[in-house]
Amino acid sequence: MRLATVRCRGSARVVLDDGERLSLLDVADVPAALARNVFQNPTPLLLDELHRDATLEFLPVVPSPSKIICVGHNYRAHILELGHDLPSYPNVFSKFPAALIGAEDPIALSPRSQEWDWEAELALVVGRRTFEADHLEARGAIAGYTVANDVSARDWQRRATQWLLGKTFNDTTPLGPWLVSSADFDPHDPHVISCHVDGVERQHSTTNDLLFSPADLVAYVSQVLPLEPGDVILTGTPGGVGMAMNPPAYLQSGQTVVTAIEGLGHCRNRCVATPEDGK
Amino acid sequence: MRLATVRCRGSARVVLDDGERLSLLDVADVPAALARNVFQNPTPLLLDELHRDATLEFLPVVPSPSKIICVGHNYRAHILELGHDLPSYPNVFSKFPAALIGAEDPIALSPRSQEWDWEAELALVVGRRTFEADHLEARGAIAGYTVANDVSARDWQRRATQWLLGKTFNDTTPLGPWLVSSADFDPHDPHVISCHVDGVERQHSTTNDLLFSPADLVAYVSQVLPLEPGDVILTGTPGGVGMAMNPPAYLQSGQTVVTAIEGLGHCRNRCVATPEDGK
Repeated sequence: MRLATVRCRGSARVVLDDGERLSLLDVADVPAALARNVFQNPTPLLLDELHRDATLEFLPVVPSPSKIICVGHNYRAHILELGHDLPSYPNVFSKFPAALIGAEDPIALSPRSQEWDWEAELALVVGRRTFEADHLEARGAIAGYTVANDVSARDWQRRATQWLLGKTFNDTTPLGPWLVSSADFDPHDPHVISCHVDGVERQHSTTNDLLFSPADLVAYVSQVLPLEPGDVILTGTPGGVGMAMNPPAYLQSGQTVVTAIEGLGHCRNRCVATPEDGK
Repeated sequence: MRLATVRCRGSARVVLDDGERLSLLDVADVPAALARNVFQNPTPLLLDELHRDATLEFLPVVPSPSKIICVGHNYRAHILELGHDLPSYPNVFSKFPAALIGAEDPIALSPRSQEWDWEAELALVVGRRTFEADHLEARGAIAGYTVANDVSARDWQRRATQWLLGKTFNDTTPLGPWLVSSADFDPHDPHVISCHVDGVERQHSTTNDLLFSPADLVAYVSQVLPLEPGDVILTGTPGGVGMAMNPPAYLQSGQTVVTAIEGLGHCRNRCVATPEDGK
């Protein structure tokens, strides 16, 4: 069972794929669908059946989450190869919703940065209000998983200790195409996560190498604030980013980035330089 | 001229004080009032006149900004007294809207932190969409100024390099009581900014000691993303926080924090411990 947000005659619609049928849902958005337990009981939400082969134009799985929470280094092998100790706590920051794009949308490379880098990530979406949760409750609060690329402007990220501005340029973070139900995807299995730039594999790991699991992250963040249906957590990226290459390599206009997670699908995004005066 | 958001029979209303009359406005919220140039031409928005002495129950000046952007060390004297060089760029992070409270609301001290600290700050509110602005345009985009306290959970802030979780516990950040129009408040004048805890002055500086001015910050952040009416920027705190005392001193349940800026007013907030199981 999986869910997407698609463009349909100029507005956003929510689509459910139950493996057999593709259906439009009678809800305003994905958070509303999750709040109504769409994966457990979709029947009351089914509106129209779509043709199985309909061409879908994907928006971000959740176009405007109330919170997007991101995590720094979180793949064991990558942390150890950098010579760091394994951290005791997740390193947590955020980005604003306007950073998000759909699974096939262009990544907007602003001329304000010269160091655009890729970061393939497993993302989770919260299904219900979750506050001060233990591990078991946190696990049950995860509606499902999707693919993200936390594309980062390294020059802006490094200008000060806090990373926010390097992480939240508009239209830089693919999220999608599908939100796959937790029942159908277990991140503790060794699903390959990869990032290819113009066909060359730059990142390759497996989701079971995550130091802090998705449920760990939900439980941890929920100690501070209530998570709501549709909130998104990006769980961190494995080794192989452009910044760590010798010499460093960054994304250029015209390149294509494919971010894939086995069992979830992939985002395929072309890099497009925005005009010098982007107003 | 100044603007507030107040509780009125269970819902939020926007109030304008033009120095003579106190008026309810015919708008949904402060961002809508700013988008309609309330400070330049309030007349079309005036709904009802309130009694001049009406008791107002303040909500955060902007209860749910699309973005809350915060800045680290930004007072010259404080940076120099810490022995640091003056930074070349602002250090920028964010918090979520649920952190905000009104000027007289209690500060919720979660038992998850043992190190609650104060940070008196000048806050600005953006009046119009602003993207890739130069200094002059940025200055014109600031609708006005208000008082904030970026109350911080130091233990959470220090657990990793990114500060977000220590900065965004729910109901910890007073913002208000009034948004004073830019025409009536010039941050380059030496307005005293102070924080008192149970009557003892802990922070004392002047707004003209800001390293990056409000317009600098708007121009800088707008290189990365468009700012929108109602977006809030907290401009950083002067010296005198509890963490820097010897021994460190932190906020305790029952204490009262008064955050004041000359020409803007003050927030007076009682600290209240939330229950161990806050659900």
